[in-house]
Amino acid sequence: MRGFSVVVLSAVLHYVEVAFSSPIASNATAAQLANRKRHWSIGYVVFPGWEPLDVFGPMEILYEMSIYANMTLSVIGKEVGPVSTVPPPHQMDPGGPIMDLSFLLGPTITATHTPETAPPLDFIFVPGGEGGVVLEKQNDTWVEDFIASRADEAQYLLSVCTGSAFLAKSGVLSGKKATTNKSAWDKVVGNGKNVTWVPSARWVEDGKVWTSSGVAAGLDMTYTFMKHLYGTDDIDQVMNIIEYAPHQDPHWDPFSLVWNVPGANKNGSMVGCAGPAGY
Amino acid sequence: MRGFSVVVLSAVLHYVEVAFSSPIASNATAAQLANRKRHWSIGYVVFPGWEPLDVFGPMEILYEMSIYANMTLSVIGKEVGPVSTVPPPHQMDPGGPIMDLSFLLGPTITATHTPETAPPLDFIFVPGGEGGVVLEKQNDTWVEDFIASRADEAQYLLSVCTGSAFLAKSGVLSGKKATTNKSAWDKVVGNGKNVTWVPSARWVEDGKVWTSSGVAAGLDMTYTFMKHLYGTDDIDQVMNIIEYAPHQDPHWDPFSLVWNVPGANKNGSMVGCAGPAGY
Repeated sequence: MRGFSVVVLSAVLHYVEVAFSSPIASNATAAQLANRKRHWSIGYVVFPGWEPLDVFGPMEILYEMSIYANMTLSVIGKEVGPVSTVPPPHQMDPGGPIMDLSFLLGPTITATHTPETAPPLDFIFVPGGEGGVVLEKQNDTWVEDFIASRADEAQYLLSVCTGSAFLAKSGVLSGKKATTNKSAWDKVVGNGKNVTWVPSARWVEDGKVWTSSGVAAGLDMTYTFMKHLYGTDDIDQVMNIIEYAPHQDPHWDPFSLVWNVPGANKNGSMVGCAGPAGY
Repeated sequence: MRGFSVVVLSAVLHYVEVAFSSPIASNATAAQLANRKRHWSIGYVVFPGWEPLDVFGPMEILYEMSIYANMTLSVIGKEVGPVSTVPPPHQMDPGGPIMDLSFLLGPTITATHTPETAPPLDFIFVPGGEGGVVLEKQNDTWVEDFIASRADEAQYLLSVCTGSAFLAKSGVLSGKKATTNKSAWDKVVGNGKNVTWVPSARWVEDGKVWTSSGVAAGLDMTYTFMKHLYGTDDIDQVMNIIEYAPHQDPHWDPFSLVWNVPGANKNGSMVGCAGPAGY
């Protein structure tokens, strides 16, 4: 652990250097260097039944990058307090049986803000999960309403997995390309208007909106997003500390074949090869 | 999301079938079929400064497997309530500067139990993170004391990243092989007695103790652990729903080369190739 501490300490000194001196030698663009010097306000939307890794995959990368970059986090729920990964019991269809998922493991994250109290946000991350189905069944539109209300102020909107259904409902995907979890394809692509859903994609970037495929794909999207925002100076080091070898080809999507997504690229490779970032 | 709901619903029916009928056609061993029928009590240890993905990588897999298998979760902190990923300010060395990491992003998980109130546990997951350094600096041994007190009762003890330092201190690695985060190698391997630290390993299994390399390696270890416990009947489906292509070779460890770990296998491949589980 001393090794890690030394990394952190040198990172702190490095951050101070970057923040308060003239630009150091770097392959970053002027825009990326400017991004490194400013503060970013990050918002995560959560609801009962959030998918664990949809939130904590990107969060891990942002957490480590917050050593180097000036970021603050707001976790936004309908109410403040603990929010479980277990969705409340809900009716699957009108007149149908009650779906009680209380047998699922239920770790909780604490929501620090509500839609009304959240500060101005630069990035908004939107996870998916079974809780999205529950909100839909309950005709509760708070997530998409919140996204719509903050879409202009946000510089980036990012979804993981079925979180793209919320983006679609909010209207921000109109005229844009997007993707989603391939095991949930049929239902998600019925949401929104004028959305070009991409059947084979690990993630899709379209201007300020980034959408990833299912769950673990959020790690790959976030790595590429951090490179886009800041350049490679620190993110490759972060990926090697967290020992994640990112898939860097946004078109690699074997899961579109596993789940028989209509229009999937049948010539795509099932196998993805990856090594440490920067090597 | 309907797709996901259908998967969940069929999983519920499947779970009922597995739990209350004679064994279904399966390639699982008799021991694995028995494991599928029983309840497992899972404990996660958390402390201020826990590494996000150390906890939520394995948690994602267990969460989805809890559709099929009978599991309950206890999150064990020194006190109940929210526990942040931000460690408290701490002195790096006697007389040295105070390390204030409050600039890190600080999502919280809620601890549901303390060492005193935690129920009997079948699995204990131990994450790493900068908080381990703080406990060490404060001479606070509650994590290793808890592990030692529950080691006999637990059927499996699993660590991710620098969590293996706690296992070493608790004594449970005595006479065993283990691994850790390769960027923190030098410090971690100073802990414990009679431990055979494996320099190139994505994860190490030694009897009831499983240890993974850094952070993201916990996903690969947990996939293999679930196969070990239950067979492949459901875990491969889970991995494809969460769109994670697991690295299945425990010897693949390019990060041991990135971080120049003494004794690392210099002939090991930097690139790991992975596809959907079961394909």
